[in-house]
Amino acid sequence: MAPAYKLISFNGGGAAERIRFLFKYGNIDFEDLQTPFGQLPVLEHNGKQINQSVSIARYVAKQVKLAGKDDWENLEIDAIVNTLSDLRARRKKKKALKETVLNETIPYYLTRLDAIVQKNKGHLALGRLTWVDLYFACSVPNYTSFVRNDILSKYPNLKTLQNKVYAISVIKSWIETCPKTEF
Amino acid sequence: MAPAYKLISFNGGGAAERIRFLFKYGNIDFEDLQTPFGQLPVLEHNGKQINQSVSIARYVAKQVKLAGKDDWENLEIDAIVNTLSDLRARRKKKKALKETVLNETIPYYLTRLDAIVQKNKGHLALGRLTWVDLYFACSVPNYTSFVRNDILSKYPNLKTLQNKVYAISVIKSWIETCPKTEF
Repeated sequence: MAPAYKLISFNGGGAAERIRFLFKYGNIDFEDLQTPFGQLPVLEHNGKQINQSVSIARYVAKQVKLAGKDDWENLEIDAIVNTLSDLRARRKKKKALKETVLNETIPYYLTRLDAIVQKNKGHLALGRLTWVDLYFACSVPNYTSFVRNDILSKYPNLKTLQNKVYAISVIKSWIETCPKTEF
Repeated sequence: MAPAYKLISFNGGGAAERIRFLFKYGNIDFEDLQTPFGQLPVLEHNGKQINQSVSIARYVAKQVKLAGKDDWENLEIDAIVNTLSDLRARRKKKKALKETVLNETIPYYLTRLDAIVQKNKGHLALGRLTWVDLYFACSVPNYTSFVRNDILSKYPNLKTLQNKVYAISVIKSWIETCPKTEF
């Protein structure tokens, strides 16, 4: 039987990786199609297609029990997810000003996120593992490749969180087996 | 008794208006504080504060029964919300190129959104009123003020939807009574 979900993404595209992490986490089988064009990633399910990666991640998180247990908890997770999106948007916006991003934007966000993790028993929200932890751990390699060194080394709580996510057995084996360009 | 929610926003800020629309829709009492500074809007509830407006809107939408009835329905709504956010981001990015925004970006999005409304029984998602309809109707005046004319006049399905939202009695009386600068 074909998997109930089909994920269509760019060859080597990073946005889909956040969704794969969640499917892997929950041992949900999905068809992983990669193409060189289009507005991607797209999730297909029961004949319907959706093309917004954060929304897809939020949906999959619910299926794999990494969402909040009520509306307010989901709001707390969402707020951190949006903060990560803000950081990504600011990095893009100031592409020409690498120094500004490196010396101001990234430290501004990571200092605050590190403090949040310290207060939240090692997690970004709710004091337990939620999808924003996976979302974060999955985004970090992009930041790292941008600044060409391990950016989290100055943020011990974030670094520990990243390692914690990478140590989840299904995520660990996914990272080890997936093509490097994918990540 | 003090209201269970406090919404803290900029004087004249538009992002909070999307949240007010939802509180008004559901007849939920809230304290509406406006300040001239900070990362706003902020929603305060049970002593906790959250500062991401789209996440807040999603949460309030659930409280006023304008969300989907299951996870997939919420994904369908979210995807359209994110498309509206994309449009806003592109407008900002190309601030210097008003002509490009006016002649390319806005028509690209509005044509597609208009077609979606036509297919969805007059709504942006699920064929019925959801929070993305209110979110959209509330954002339109910003686009309009940017291009200085009624941008929706070329998009009859979107125009009808806007009018439908504005005709909801609680929204109608909110619009009529709120300070113009707020909108």
